[in-house]
Amino acid sequence: MPGPVREALDALPLVDHHCHGAVTADLTEPEFESLLTEGAAWPGVSPFDTPAGIAVRRHCAPLLGLDRHAPVADYLARRAELGWQEVNRRFLTAAHTEAFCVDTGYAPHPVTSPAELAAAAGARAYEVVRLESVAEAVAAQGIDAAGYAGAFRAAAEEAVRRPGVVAVKSVAAYRTGFGLDPARPTYAEVTRAAALWFAAGGRLTDPVLMRHLLWTAVGLGLPLQLHAGFGDSDLRLHHADPALLTDWLRMTTGTVPVLLLHCWPYQRQAAYLAAVFEHVHLDVGLALHHVGPARAGAVLAEAMEITPFRKLLYSSDAYGVAEFHHLGALSFRQGLAGMLQARVDADELSPTDAVRIAAWTGRDNARRLYGLPASDPGRD
Amino acid sequence: MPGPVREALDALPLVDHHCHGAVTADLTEPEFESLLTEGAAWPGVSPFDTPAGIAVRRHCAPLLGLDRHAPVADYLARRAELGWQEVNRRFLTAAHTEAFCVDTGYAPHPVTSPAELAAAAGARAYEVVRLESVAEAVAAQGIDAAGYAGAFRAAAEEAVRRPGVVAVKSVAAYRTGFGLDPARPTYAEVTRAAALWFAAGGRLTDPVLMRHLLWTAVGLGLPLQLHAGFGDSDLRLHHADPALLTDWLRMTTGTVPVLLLHCWPYQRQAAYLAAVFEHVHLDVGLALHHVGPARAGAVLAEAMEITPFRKLLYSSDAYGVAEFHHLGALSFRQGLAGMLQARVDADELSPTDAVRIAAWTGRDNARRLYGLPASDPGRD
Amino acid sequence: MPGPVREALDALPLVDHHCHGAVTADLTEPEFESLLTEGAAWPGVSPFDTPAGIAVRRHCAPLLGLDRHAPVADYLARRAELGWQEVNRRFLTAAHTEAFCVDTGYAPHPVTSPAELAAAAGARAYEVVRLESVAEAVAAQGIDAAGYAGAFRAAAEEAVRRPGVVAVKSVAAYRTGFGLDPARPTYAEVTRAAALWFAAGGRLTDPVLMRHLLWTAVGLGLPLQLHAGFGDSDLRLHHADPALLTDWLRMTTGTVPVLLLHCWPYQRQAAYLAAVFEHVHLDVGLALHHVGPARAGAVLAEAMEITPFRKLLYSSDAYGVAEFHHLGALSFRQGLAGMLQARVDADELSPTDAVRIAAWTGRDNARRLYGLPASDPGRD
Repeated sequence: MPGPVREALDALPLVDHHCHGAVTADLTEPEFESLLTEGAAWPGVSPFDTPAGIAVRRHCAPLLGLDRHAPVADYLARRAELGWQEVNRRFLTAAHTEAFCVDTGYAPHPVTSPAELAAAAGARAYEVVRLESVAEAVAAQGIDAAGYAGAFRAAAEEAVRRPGVVAVKSVAAYRTGFGLDPARPTYAEVTRAAALWFAAGGRLTDPVLMRHLLWTAVGLGLPLQLHAGFGDSDLRLHHADPALLTDWLRMTTGTVPVLLLHCWPYQRQAAYLAAVFEHVHLDVGLALHHVGPARAGAVLAEAMEITPFRKLLYSSDAYGVAEFHHLGALSFRQGLAGMLQARVDADELSPTDAVRIAAWTGRDNARRLYGLPASDPGRD
Repeated sequence: MPGPVREALDALPLVDHHCHGAVTADLTEPEFESLLTEGAAWPGVSPFDTPAGIAVRRHCAPLLGLDRHAPVADYLARRAELGWQEVNRRFLTAAHTEAFCVDTGYAPHPVTSPAELAAAAGARAYEVVRLESVAEAVAAQGIDAAGYAGAFRAAAEEAVRRPGVVAVKSVAAYRTGFGLDPARPTYAEVTRAAALWFAAGGRLTDPVLMRHLLWTAVGLGLPLQLHAGFGDSDLRLHHADPALLTDWLRMTTGTVPVLLLHCWPYQRQAAYLAAVFEHVHLDVGLALHHVGPARAGAVLAEAMEITPFRKLLYSSDAYGVAEFHHLGALSFRQGLAGMLQARVDADELSPTDAVRIAAWTGRDNARRLYGLPASDPGRD
Repeated sequence: MPGPVREALDALPLVDHHCHGAVTADLTEPEFESLLTEGAAWPGVSPFDTPAGIAVRRHCAPLLGLDRHAPVADYLARRAELGWQEVNRRFLTAAHTEAFCVDTGYAPHPVTSPAELAAAAGARAYEVVRLESVAEAVAAQGIDAAGYAGAFRAAAEEAVRRPGVVAVKSVAAYRTGFGLDPARPTYAEVTRAAALWFAAGGRLTDPVLMRHLLWTAVGLGLPLQLHAGFGDSDLRLHHADPALLTDWLRMTTGTVPVLLLHCWPYQRQAAYLAAVFEHVHLDVGLALHHVGPARAGAVLAEAMEITPFRKLLYSSDAYGVAEFHHLGALSFRQGLAGMLQARVDADELSPTDAVRIAAWTGRDNARRLYGLPASDPGRD
């Protein structure tokens, strides 16, 4: 699928507005394989026997000096031979990304800090603060329930004042789902719920506290990223349909930008929300590297059916293996270019508009929303 | 995408079984732009920066004497220069539609009456009565709650006796969603709910009264159009999934034809209902001009996966700007022709069947359901 | 769509892991037509005027010695002329299927037993025990409620000990939907619910007894097939979204294989479940012959976006007319081959991997899960 749109996208440094770090250690084969899938690694099921695994062998193997479609054993051996630092460097630079916005709140493995990711990629990196982590740290301090609302707000405000923080994020989709009462809870309700949580311990899963977290997020003034749709087995997928959030989005119109992350298979529902609510945006991260370049265009085409072009962003949502930072970018470029080029070829879209849509989606929308500087202010 | 199916569809006068009027005034640029989107017009976001905007510049600009993909400023200037009457005339005649069924219950702007729309298009026009408007007019008369059920029924019966009325419509999807108790409410329940409504005022949003409205519709004997899926920001999209109406559809089998309008992104759910319930039909109006010709075929292909060919209809659901009456028709013709021609080319479908399916879907199903005369009885 | 992948799939004997018998009687035209659709046969609507009807005239007519796209009248006449035995033989052998797993719990018509189906096809056949039928037979014995749990379990264990039984099946999606409390009910709860059921009579539709049935299924040790998504009018489609079963699937991880049957239009939701839960698998049976070869590839492409290749199986879900045993196989082969070949042609997939994925999906996954012997152990 060559052509001018693909060339433009290849030349365009992306902004990956939501990703995680890459592992900073050599991985055993089982460790590596478990990072290739959103499920666990299962006996008899190689995570290479998936669309993502096919894409890794096709598009990552050559960057390790192997043939396309290299056998799994060769891939693993060569990856081990090169070592994690070289592997990360190769894939992260191949992603040709000028800026990464890194969610630092999920790191069961030792992974790169934003600064380390930036250094390996030759890029800049920013931080996204995961608010559930902030809330759970507050709860761990042993404060009393009456102090929770204020302490959480103060901790969140302090967290977003750290240099390089450009957004906050919530995983409400995982914890409670989006079927929440949209109203801001009262102080008394929050205190009562906090008392129950502190007594029970564990993660933040109380719906009153989750609503409080979302409303607190609105007050912080930064763009709010919300996981939606596809994720790991710790999810009820249908509770993560972003349409469930409609009432809350209606109530928060005119406040902070809301970024619906991933969304698959509810990308059309997310597109509807982005089309009718001024502050709503979306991406199809995570899905991009899991479906691979062979289907990224189909998923993007659904996501873009009615979405205003200023509302779609690029993210990889890569975690752990730098293959996914690369594959996300490649799937995005190949999928989007294929779709736009076909429209240009059918004279449904002008070449100028195609390149503009590609640049907005891959970079400029994120720059604008997060206030990121141009990588080379003299040029773009 | 030329070919015999496209030629047949271009030659076929369509029946647009659900649309609205076109504005009868010159529009300021912001007024025009706000009509291009289902959302509000937002600062910094041009409604031309959408798939619909791209399609307008591609497919409407030439009808104004401009180049394809004309710049927005040129488009707006030329549109203003021609004036609303000439603009309406050009787009409405380009739609090549023999009959429009016009929902007259939504008109926040001054728009063409059905007769004016017909005159501008060189077509015939019929009226669709929006039952919520009838109910709200009854409530505004100051009757008492005990008289509501009878008065609403009488008013609805009177409304559908007006010459040219061919169908009724409900926007239950917007007001209560489809997750209603399917049973017909009792007189006592209706009276109680009416008393509460009259005391509270405002629009009809009570679920008991909405059920009563739907069951009253069944008694009127005309086809019943139901908005489903995609609409403006005043909607909870997931409450407009037509599958939620299953029990009610099961209970009303054998009564009036039910037409599920728009449906996106639930077109497959609507297709299932059309496949298993004798009286259920669907279209993908509204989506057609919002996704544009570049994606209309993909949406239609999903809508037609299992739908009996007698069950799919064409509508534009255009409102306000006559561009959309044209774009709806064009997207339908181009999308359907592309899909059917590809199947003919692959020898999956005979040319005769392809043309028959196109004629049924674009015109004949609507003629049959609404009892419309042939435009030229000697010929077709 | 010729090419090496299609040739490999044409040469591959399939395992149809879920189907029903073919009718063993000559059918009147209305009887035949009513079997072509999931709805009833309706006045004025020929079931040939559907995507499935188009596919029958295209792909089944030649096997009866007629031209492709033969007129309906010719098709019906020729089918009657040949007689049911010859018709069954032609379509069942054309399906080129080495083994059929036959659900014997649904047979409103006189249909082939598994052995008769096998004989007509020149294949082997196995049995799938429908657990609702077992439960209803137990209830019909006039036992008392306190004995129901034990008697059902004993009857189910006896049923699965019959020679040739390879799986059990539940139609919970139809009876209660998947929105069930996932927990195993207590003996007291089951007894109380059984008492109510025995008093009321009728089919098993009680949610407590349905949960009990599903948990009993887990204890039987055989793969469990679950109808999901698309079916006839006796369904609430949105209650058959397999995502609703998430909590139960989480609780049963590590037990028996679960096979989500059909799934359309929720194939992406099913794919998610298969990607994150070790024991979950899926197919898109039933949809294959209803959408026909023209759309089977599109549906399969969605089903395979993230599904591990060991998790997708082939089924026809054909019932009654042997046309559907053939069309299911043909749609599967043509759809899958088209998709895989396009990826090979784009160098997104190696030819070796494409053929392996085809063989796993069409045959080997089912052989492994159900413990079926190879048809020719010396060769494959």
